[in-house]
Amino acid sequence: MITMYDIIHNKREGKELSKDEIDFFVNGYVKDEIPDYQASALLMAIYFKGLSKKETFLLTDAMRCSGDIVDLSSIPGVKVDKHSTGGVGDKTTLIVGPLAASCGISVAKMSGRGLGFTGGTIDKLEAIPGFKTSITSQDFIKTVKTIGMSVIGQTAHIAPADKKLYALRDVTATVENIGLISGSIMSKKLAAGSDAIVLDVKCGSGAFMKDFESALILAEYMVEIGCNAGKKTAALITDMNQPLGYAVGNALEVKEAIEVLKNNGPKDLTELSLQLAAHMVYLGEKAATIEEAYQMVRNHLENGAALDKFSQFVKAQGGNNNVIDDYSILPAASFKLPVKAFQDGFIEKIHAESIGKAALLTGAGRKKKEDYIDLSAGIILNKKIGEKVSKGDILAEIHGNNLDSINEAEMIVKDAYSISHIKPMVEKLVKALVTINNVKIY
Amino acid sequence: MITMYDIIHNKREGKELSKDEIDFFVNGYVKDEIPDYQASALLMAIYFKGLSKKETFLLTDAMRCSGDIVDLSSIPGVKVDKHSTGGVGDKTTLIVGPLAASCGISVAKMSGRGLGFTGGTIDKLEAIPGFKTSITSQDFIKTVKTIGMSVIGQTAHIAPADKKLYALRDVTATVENIGLISGSIMSKKLAAGSDAIVLDVKCGSGAFMKDFESALILAEYMVEIGCNAGKKTAALITDMNQPLGYAVGNALEVKEAIEVLKNNGPKDLTELSLQLAAHMVYLGEKAATIEEAYQMVRNHLENGAALDKFSQFVKAQGGNNNVIDDYSILPAASFKLPVKAFQDGFIEKIHAESIGKAALLTGAGRKKKEDYIDLSAGIILNKKIGEKVSKGDILAEIHGNNLDSINEAEMIVKDAYSISHIKPMVEKLVKALVTINNVKIY
Repeated sequence: MITMYDIIHNKREGKELSKDEIDFFVNGYVKDEIPDYQASALLMAIYFKGLSKKETFLLTDAMRCSGDIVDLSSIPGVKVDKHSTGGVGDKTTLIVGPLAASCGISVAKMSGRGLGFTGGTIDKLEAIPGFKTSITSQDFIKTVKTIGMSVIGQTAHIAPADKKLYALRDVTATVENIGLISGSIMSKKLAAGSDAIVLDVKCGSGAFMKDFESALILAEYMVEIGCNAGKKTAALITDMNQPLGYAVGNALEVKEAIEVLKNNGPKDLTELSLQLAAHMVYLGEKAATIEEAYQMVRNHLENGAALDKFSQFVKAQGGNNNVIDDYSILPAASFKLPVKAFQDGFIEKIHAESIGKAALLTGAGRKKKEDYIDLSAGIILNKKIGEKVSKGDILAEIHGNNLDSINEAEMIVKDAYSISHIKPMVEKLVKALVTINNVKIY
Repeated sequence: MITMYDIIHNKREGKELSKDEIDFFVNGYVKDEIPDYQASALLMAIYFKGLSKKETFLLTDAMRCSGDIVDLSSIPGVKVDKHSTGGVGDKTTLIVGPLAASCGISVAKMSGRGLGFTGGTIDKLEAIPGFKTSITSQDFIKTVKTIGMSVIGQTAHIAPADKKLYALRDVTATVENIGLISGSIMSKKLAAGSDAIVLDVKCGSGAFMKDFESALILAEYMVEIGCNAGKKTAALITDMNQPLGYAVGNALEVKEAIEVLKNNGPKDLTELSLQLAAHMVYLGEKAATIEEAYQMVRNHLENGAALDKFSQFVKAQGGNNNVIDDYSILPAASFKLPVKAFQDGFIEKIHAESIGKAALLTGAGRKKKEDYIDLSAGIILNKKIGEKVSKGDILAEIHGNNLDSINEAEMIVKDAYSISHIKPMVEKLVKALVTINNVKIY
């Protein structure tokens, strides 16, 4: 007979848990038959003793099966999903979706609101007047069939075991474990029903994985889980030592994403979006090589096809697609406070996490899931790593509606910048491509 | 600001917790302000990262302060307590108390019922008709003042933080940690109000500590906590590779204890009782050396003074002291089933834990605190390690009132015995004496 005590004890002693033990735990926990205090003891034992790739797959699969599994089989062709492990200023979904869809890929994306420095993709899209993310799954599938892409809010019924476990990990200092992290991400991705998944694993001071080695291990775990589950899966490891692009905040990021789709966006954000979309097109079998796929998405950016797809997508979900030509219909903050350079030199570092915290202060994100988000608020960076500045130059601009918070955010943003007399090295944007049993380092 | 999350995180990272952090945890937990799931995550982190002696002392002290602290100051002289970490057939309290009291030591003993193979001291004493352990603290102190000893049941108000934490450890596989074990024992001992403590740390197959090294570390931790708290503390490390004495079970053990007090008991139990009592007399300053103390308690055993003290003690707490001359007034089991030797040879091993489990089966112990104890039930060993037997000799006798259980117990007891053709070495009974910063190995 399996007991939760024995499962905790076995993991504590470093034993590999069996499928039966993992299923017993996940199923019992989601049904409230196993108390939180036993689950948290197991999580801490896992923190110390780890999960093998086999255990991680079994955990992921048990969590995937704990709720609804989206059936996308009525949509023809290969459905490709994209997931980012999260970073400051990461609005690539808004760009990559239309890019891939314009190349014939079906992008049926389920997104979260999430907690953090800014809202999730769902919140960002809701900055567009009229945009609806709470749509029926019939409408969701119909939209993907018609225009090639749709974004829907994630329901509580997708991997509820993960949801419950994540909430527990969050308050018991048991988040930081490769097996648990990859299981959490992949259980939701696998339940979301796509056939292929491109992962963007962020790495650097603004990311969950601070160094390349841990990002690589996470990428390998997730790619292996995806492939074991019968999904084509690839991961890019990308830089998050400074915010991506210049905009951090919901409406601000929508505007920047549209600028990218007009081929007028920041170089880093444009390049990363092209690469992610290229991998989606390649996994979705619309190109024979990644190079060919890259050329295709690049053409679709330059010839306006991707922007056109974005416009169709916004309209299909009830949003006002005039936003493309008229940013004034997006919510705008009442106050803008410049942050000025305190000395001459080169921008050496921008502590991405601090920029995120400042954005949260302005109201752009939420600490608790009940928190209200100010879609107009955020930070616009004016200078990024390697740029030359003179004392008094504007480094960034704080957007918000509460003067006290803006002033506080200004201090944090100022502290986030390091200015040096020596021109710094700029980190490579895309550091590696991880596919099953293969790593290509750039 | 201290948060429980940070405390868990700090311990997970191997940091030494501060007094403020430990107080925050213990006080918050006992007040139900900290949830079980955070407490169990911390316990598992402690399991892996350990507690320093300093942290253990702070934890012990916080748990001691979480409830009532017994005030024995109205009793003149040095009050000396004794504690055993628990073993099969350990009835030394019944012998050691009268021995030490007969030498002028004040023994104000608070005892638990406990879970386990047999009842605790309180249960054993209640096998004597009329014996009351639920007495007021006034009567308790008065009895110690008058006759030199009293035993009272432990209330829920002694170290409630330990009680709550122990229950959690028990179901989360976090019992086995030296810091937590010593803190649990010592918080109760310190709250019980005596000035000096003699610890009997059991070691061997029938004890919690299976090997000498871990018993030694536990003894060192507990002695240091006691001394840091201003109590004279010493620990004996003693053998528990077979049951102590021959009797296992409540009424059966009372009878054997009285036999020891008549200087007619088993050699091992008599010798250990003399040694423990001698250390109590020495710490209680009734003798200048341990040798002198040993001589004193031995005289008091031989001249009947200890037996007389036991009689006074039983009478003082309402018990029928005719029990000394008439064992028939003790509860007796309806059935006695002999366990016979399956071959010729020498008794090589008696698996003490199995004997305990067999005793539990007969009804002598409790698995859950609500369980009823059959005070008449248990096991009487007839042969111990090193003794020669012939096939068919009686190894032990099962006492009980339920034939099915007795038959099951008989199988277990038979399996607990190993018989060999070679006469085995017998383990030393008292292996070491641990005092502050000093270990004397015998």
